Amino acid sequence: MDFYQKLNSAWTTSNSALCVGLDPDVSKMPAHLRNDPLGIQKFCIDIIDATADTVCAFKPQIAYFAAVGAEAQLQAVCDHVRTQYPHIVLILDAKRGDIGDTAALYAREAFERYQADAVTVNPYLGTDSLEPFLRTPNKGTIVLCRTSNEGSGQFQSQLIDNEPLYKHVARAAANTWQHMGDTALVVGATYPAELAEVRAIVGDMPLLVPGIGAQGGDINAVVRNGSNSSGLGLIINSSRAVLYASNDAHFAQSARDVALATRDAIRAASN
Amino acid sequence: MDFYQKLNSAWTTSNSALCVGLDPDVSKMPAHLRNDPLGIQKFCIDIIDATADTVCAFKPQIAYFAAVGAEAQLQAVCDHVRTQYPHIVLILDAKRGDIGDTAALYAREAFERYQADAVTVNPYLGTDSLEPFLRTPNKGTIVLCRTSNEGSGQFQSQLIDNEPLYKHVARAAANTWQHMGDTALVVGATYPAELAEVRAIVGDMPLLVPGIGAQGGDINAVVRNGSNSSGLGLIINSSRAVLYASNDAHFAQSARDVALATRDAIRAASN
Repeated sequence: MDFYQKLNSAWTTSNSALCVGLDPDVSKMPAHLRNDPLGIQKFCIDIIDATADTVCAFKPQIAYFAAVGAEAQLQAVCDHVRTQYPHIVLILDAKRGDIGDTAALYAREAFERYQADAVTVNPYLGTDSLEPFLRTPNKGTIVLCRTSNEGSGQFQSQLIDNEPLYKHVARAAANTWQHMGDTALVVGATYPAELAEVRAIVGDMPLLVPGIGAQGGDINAVVRNGSNSSGLGLIINSSRAVLYASNDAHFAQSARDVALATRDAIRAASN
Repeated sequence: MDFYQKLNSAWTTSNSALCVGLDPDVSKMPAHLRNDPLGIQKFCIDIIDATADTVCAFKPQIAYFAAVGAEAQLQAVCDHVRTQYPHIVLILDAKRGDIGDTAALYAREAFERYQADAVTVNPYLGTDSLEPFLRTPNKGTIVLCRTSNEGSGQFQSQLIDNEPLYKHVARAAANTWQHMGDTALVVGATYPAELAEVRAIVGDMPLLVPGIGAQGGDINAVVRNGSNSSGLGLIINSSRAVLYASNDAHFAQSARDVALATRDAIRAASN
């Protein structure tokens, strides 16, 4: 099954566009897990089990694992999603970007080592740097287009032939990359007007939308501006608002409550 | 000692602008190391010991380690450089780029976990994504400007206000980033004209120049176009041409021969 098929199936099965981002910040985790050598893994797995029926995707952010040498725990988290929830899409958030030979190694990291269904990548080096990801059979390549951070416009919004750089990235996705492999784009919920512009360029291509929750993006604006012709086409990510809904012994239930509310808010906005 | 001081000291001590890139590709390593579980680490350490007196810097490329789950071997390689050759600059080639909270974790990966002196990063997300790297005391942030790959012009050379994107990146480095922390830029040896343009913008800022050797960049053109007012200001990287000079039992001596010849070619071009 290729990435687009798996994503479509996950949307249908879950009836949810919500993606829970797994950014395990040890300092924000419940006390009983903070000093546990496997605390990161246990925290993520508890969150996964508590929210799995509310999501279409999970998105572990590799930096949180790499900073503390927890690759084995990331592996365990990825294995847990794949084996326990095989219908849910697993996105490795890594934002990799390098020249071809090296990019092939990063593709191996994401797709062979962690067996992710898709990985986030950076377009700055151009198509040849994305090719090893795009050419991997059955996998998805999710390219940064307009990121959710406050300063993202510094380069991404600079005008080239009267159009901002991020629209040129969107055009490359529509005209080139999606013919090489299953492609999606990252557009931040914090920039709903740009989301509409990107949607107009890329047709029904899936968009990964971070920035609701802690970053303040508006769900209604995201759904209104980002939806595609066949219904939704969005993977709407929330990380911190779900993960750190509470940091007591009931953190998983609190996370589930927020995930359910977020899923329902997306559903309501879609009707 | 801050990054600029350490780099200046390394240039003086070594009388070399050569950086050897550590891209340990198992399939190209000598037979006796290919099936050794610690083969990557042993290969890199043999290369380091054979070439240390010819270089100002070593640059491990994290993708080669991450693809095969060899973080512990990367750690051992970094530890070896730091403890055995404390005057040599250690650059982690990771090309990270993410929003602020996550970028702080990547900075921790590079600077705390691997204790690199500097790390390569991607500018696509803007200044706020670079800030956690730039603000780490005594460390260097080496930002991609014009990369060495064939397709790098696709976005990097697009004109914004009549100037290519990479020149805007160079201006941000000169006007903003170097006031936040010790900054350097990556400009490929495969684009010598662009190297001159970037040098004209950034004054004496160090430039990391990959793309000689296997990628075909010309050392004379690099030195002519990239040198700064105080002599050189360049970290000129060769990876494959040194690492895989031969793949028999004498690979380290072959690597040393190529490294010496490359160092001397850079010296000759500088006179």
